[in-house]
Amino acid sequence: MLVLGVDPGSITTGYGIVSKKNNLFTCITSGAIESTGNVPFYDRIFKIFEKMVELMEQYRPDEMAIEDVFFAKNVKSSLKLGHARGAALIAAVKCNVKIYEYTPLEIKQSVVGYGRATKEQVSSMVRMILKLPSIKRADTTDALAAAICHLNWTRYEKKI
Amino acid sequence: MLVLGVDPGSITTGYGIVSKKNNLFTCITSGAIESTGNVPFYDRIFKIFEKMVELMEQYRPDEMAIEDVFFAKNVKSSLKLGHARGAALIAAVKCNVKIYEYTPLEIKQSVVGYGRATKEQVSSMVRMILKLPSIKRADTTDALAAAICHLNWTRYEKKI
Repeated sequence: MLVLGVDPGSITTGYGIVSKKNNLFTCITSGAIESTGNVPFYDRIFKIFEKMVELMEQYRPDEMAIEDVFFAKNVKSSLKLGHARGAALIAAVKCNVKIYEYTPLEIKQSVVGYGRATKEQVSSMVRMILKLPSIKRADTTDALAAAICHLNWTRYEKKI
Repeated sequence: MLVLGVDPGSITTGYGIVSKKNNLFTCITSGAIESTGNVPFYDRIFKIFEKMVELMEQYRPDEMAIEDVFFAKNVKSSLKLGHARGAALIAAVKCNVKIYEYTPLEIKQSVVGYGRATKEQVSSMVRMILKLPSIKRADTTDALAAAICHLNWTRYEKKI
């Protein structure tokens, strides 16, 4: 099972593809889609869509896990976040990748075992689970955490 | 010159294609992309993207005019609006249609001649300019108003 985790944002969108075989998690690829300030907003959003499609076509993940956002700092930032998140969703529907949404609380609960875990706690658990020496960006860590959460949740679902 | 006007929304996205020849505005097509409540949110967003691409491929508009939103009712509704607006922007970049953004004030100013015009005033001016007996939805009217605004603005720009 191959899961693409996404942490959307209009400036930086983190992504990570995680596989799971015999209870072993492996990071296949991970990174961040970044935009410089000079690029028009619509081109930044298109870049997220384009890169997501590229990743899905190259790695053929079975499913996508993405944060379910209920709030943002303010109306303006949530509007921008909506554009970025929409780009990831459109790419997934286009590539026939099934979408699963998790709240930040569910992701932290699943990865760290505690819904109110700090960013540092999430990051060190993600590194430990995937046996990675370091992860450059918080957005990438959060994307990998979403993927791990989904793989954990799927295991739980199958047990039931 | 053929302009596609868009009034994005996660439940209803209005659209209208307006042509201008010899100072005469004509509505080529108009309508609204609607979603019923039972459809998952990501499918609703994808439907907007898909229909926008379809319209652009069928009518080949030169440019797209879309409302520049700075605010929404609340954080949750602006997040949803962002998804829908992103779908229209991604479709335009994909189809090489140049994007122009106008504030609600600029659109009303351009169509009615008064930035604080009511929805009814905008609607009756749009109907008059396009010689349409009636327009079913406010979202469609707003999309047509954005297209007219852009065509007016382009004329002004060329004069300079």
